[in-house]
Amino acid sequence: MPATKGYDSPCPIARALDIVGERWTILIVRDLVLHGARRFQDFERSLTGISPNTLSARLKTLEHSGIVERRFYEQHPPRAHYVLTDKGRELRPVLKALLNWGQRHAD
Amino acid sequence: MPATKGYDSPCPIARALDIVGERWTILIVRDLVLHGARRFQDFERSLTGISPNTLSARLKTLEHSGIVERRFYEQHPPRAHYVLTDKGRELRPVLKALLNWGQRHAD
Repeated sequence: MPATKGYDSPCPIARALDIVGERWTILIVRDLVLHGARRFQDFERSLTGISPNTLSARLKTLEHSGIVERRFYEQHPPRAHYVLTDKGRELRPVLKALLNWGQRHAD
Repeated sequence: MPATKGYDSPCPIARALDIVGERWTILIVRDLVLHGARRFQDFERSLTGISPNTLSARLKTLEHSGIVERRFYEQHPPRAHYVLTDKGRELRPVLKALLNWGQRHAD
């Protein structure tokens, strides 16, 4: 998961990256930490350059991994948005560490 | 940097990922945190599945970004290994956060 590109390693860092290491994934989680619920089109707006196919694939992977949950906030017409699960919210220390390092070193 | 795949975003998280978000990069840094100095062939042994071309490209990117330094530990014949710079060592909180999350959630 993603099986085709997994590191096939027992190392917990590699296993974490098998789930959240793909391009765009951490930025999707970042948007959910910052904004709470997000609709597909919200991600499209903030993640400049992502294709709808890639966004859709990343959200599916995150859903299957139990990091993100898709919720219907309206029934007629049906409208869904995405929120983080507890497992997803526990990625915040990863984001915080990247933020700190980026602020110091990635100017 | 890598220019072809950068997120082109001012967000420090995105800028950090422009530098360390490519496949294999964090695992190269992990090996250097764990072992100190590493030779090219040491990485090839621990990073199962990486191609020599990819490893070489990642090390060059890390060197150009000032995260890794290439040092000659022997002159005749010349033999080099790689070590982390201060900037590279400051990625440890990122690794630690991924490790913690992986241990809890990526079984």
